[in-house]
Amino acid sequence: MAASRLRPLLVDIHSHVYLPRYASLLRARKDVPRIFTRTNAAGEREDRLVILTDEPSDQGRPVGPQYWDRQAKLQFMDQHGIDCSVISSANPWLDFVAPVEASEVAQQLNEDLEEFCSTGPTISSELDSRGLKRLYGFGLLPLVPGIPVSQIIETVYQIQKLAHLRGVIIGTRGLGNGLDDAELEPVWEALEKTRLVAFMHPHYGIGKDAWGKEQSHVLPLALGFPFETTIAITRMILAGVLDRHPDIRIMLAHSGGVLPQLSSRLASCIAHDPVVASRLKYDARAYLGMLYYDAVCYGSAELAFVSEVAKRGHRRRASQSLIFCRGTDHPFFPPLKESSLWRSVVENSEAIDNVPNWTQAQKDAVRGNNAIELLIAGKEQ
Amino acid sequence: MAASRLRPLLVDIHSHVYLPRYASLLRARKDVPRIFTRTNAAGEREDRLVILTDEPSDQGRPVGPQYWDRQAKLQFMDQHGIDCSVISSANPWLDFVAPVEASEVAQQLNEDLEEFCSTGPTISSELDSRGLKRLYGFGLLPLVPGIPVSQIIETVYQIQKLAHLRGVIIGTRGLGNGLDDAELEPVWEALEKTRLVAFMHPHYGIGKDAWGKEQSHVLPLALGFPFETTIAITRMILAGVLDRHPDIRIMLAHSGGVLPQLSSRLASCIAHDPVVASRLKYDARAYLGMLYYDAVCYGSAELAFVSEVAKRGHRRRASQSLIFCRGTDHPFFPPLKESSLWRSVVENSEAIDNVPNWTQAQKDAVRGNNAIELLIAGKEQ
Repeated sequence: MAASRLRPLLVDIHSHVYLPRYASLLRARKDVPRIFTRTNAAGEREDRLVILTDEPSDQGRPVGPQYWDRQAKLQFMDQHGIDCSVISSANPWLDFVAPVEASEVAQQLNEDLEEFCSTGPTISSELDSRGLKRLYGFGLLPLVPGIPVSQIIETVYQIQKLAHLRGVIIGTRGLGNGLDDAELEPVWEALEKTRLVAFMHPHYGIGKDAWGKEQSHVLPLALGFPFETTIAITRMILAGVLDRHPDIRIMLAHSGGVLPQLSSRLASCIAHDPVVASRLKYDARAYLGMLYYDAVCYGSAELAFVSEVAKRGHRRRASQSLIFCRGTDHPFFPPLKESSLWRSVVENSEAIDNVPNWTQAQKDAVRGNNAIELLIAGKEQ
Repeated sequence: MAASRLRPLLVDIHSHVYLPRYASLLRARKDVPRIFTRTNAAGEREDRLVILTDEPSDQGRPVGPQYWDRQAKLQFMDQHGIDCSVISSANPWLDFVAPVEASEVAQQLNEDLEEFCSTGPTISSELDSRGLKRLYGFGLLPLVPGIPVSQIIETVYQIQKLAHLRGVIIGTRGLGNGLDDAELEPVWEALEKTRLVAFMHPHYGIGKDAWGKEQSHVLPLALGFPFETTIAITRMILAGVLDRHPDIRIMLAHSGGVLPQLSSRLASCIAHDPVVASRLKYDARAYLGMLYYDAVCYGSAELAFVSEVAKRGHRRRASQSLIFCRGTDHPFFPPLKESSLWRSVVENSEAIDNVPNWTQAQKDAVRGNNAIELLIAGKEQ
């Protein structure tokens, strides 16, 4: 820690971009995901993003500079007092890219992201004397069906060499068979070895049949997203990935989905299935302490609960708050009305402020120090 | 409360049976769900139950007197110190019954269940002087596609008249379109009016595609079941059922699935969707305090968390533990080895014992007094 710190740093590790090169890919598409331009009711041209296959309409949502412009990102950060963001491509990443192109596209986008971060501003020396930048990034891996795994590994090492990239963002499909696919073993090995953080993020939710006639985005986003993350990490646990790679650094979006609320039930179900039980090293609850979580769950009780259940793990972290890093999910959940502060950001910020049993130091850790330690302050730790 | 009580009563409100008439229905079937008889490795004949369409094998699980014999149920209760059980048909209830037969089958099974309870033993007067029985029941409704809703309503009133039935058990499919189906409006009205408790229980989980190559029962049970319950109750909330029927008594199996962990995220997603937000009376979190939960979540932190988030509701119950009633899920999760106590029962019992912030009175409420008040001590409350 720099002795000159005026106040603890505020870091956002859940912040998305569509880099210009990525936005161009989306503009060239006719199928979802895509960006198209239409004339709105006011007679103005506007860009629209259609991101989810199951979206109730094909009209998508507005998309603009918040998604690709560095100044817009920095302005959002300034508005909310965020000193530093670890940015990542938004879903669905490269899932739609052909396997023959995916590796090259990933590596180009990773270089773009490195430039986006490295040529950006530095945190004021009054706040931090280490010369840290205001932007760091999670790179992209070419995780698409049909790609040789060697190309994924190459990209892991490309990311490791790019000075401002500190991890990777991954969806849940892997090579098309999920993250418990044995083919991915060398990828986990490379991630463990390089100590890059793998930020796991949902995109597909679960099948839209589950939502019946409820046609809004509410159910796919509120339930489908955390269900998807929970399924993916649980399948990884059951497949022994965390047993074989105990030092892998996986960070789960949206505070781990619902794995925290289901881990005791999971442990009980496993205990009653001798085949599954015999192949795992630990009680299911123990794995929660081996994972990291963003603090994007919109409530203090939720944060307190996740940190409580993560303590049951055998690999309990030094501090109960070390597991969390603050996030905003920007530029998603924009406010309905123009306002200086985004409601979703304020809610997640107040959630941290109001966790009853966290000390000031623990709150500061979640607000920024954990992310500095885990992701920012030097790649070697 | 009876003055003569030696100790607080222990009540189990999550306890299943397949009554003999129901078991016969399952034996007559060739498709799932069904019971069939096979010769096992030891050369003995044994009954097997195949209950889930997505079961990895068609060999099912052993099924025996625990499922239909009253003595076996009472023996299990005695073994675990349970004074009273509110029993219910196990899934999938009548979902497979043709609409022309469903009403008659439901009413016959409800009469069978009434007899099963009413001709059974009474709680010792040393423990309770009110002459309470050891068995009460949740009846069945003919909730199948194609049935006239009037027949469902008739069955609600049949159940109300049967002295030892105190509620209904319902799955999540309703008439085939989920529980947010507008056709079900008169059913909710009748349940609210009769003050019968509706115990909502999962059966279908989510599509098996979600589980990839993981072939065990672990994922459908540990994740699929609570996901299904969560989707069903959330759809009801979004459809305004709890707004229109604030006095309906819905009890959610498995401590509410994962609605507690997702209610703040749900509230945020709704707040960003003006169409959905405008049709709901309350913030999504408020509905949690209008619901009841079984205490079947296998952990103290989970119980503490659910009671904490339910307190955020505008209709906060008198006591933070009133929302919970104890359950065992018997005869499911039998122990792998012969033992006097079932591991799953012990875990859920210890979970209640060890909730850090609950007083002895609150623990006693969850162990039995809540269920007595809500379900057993007189239909008029």
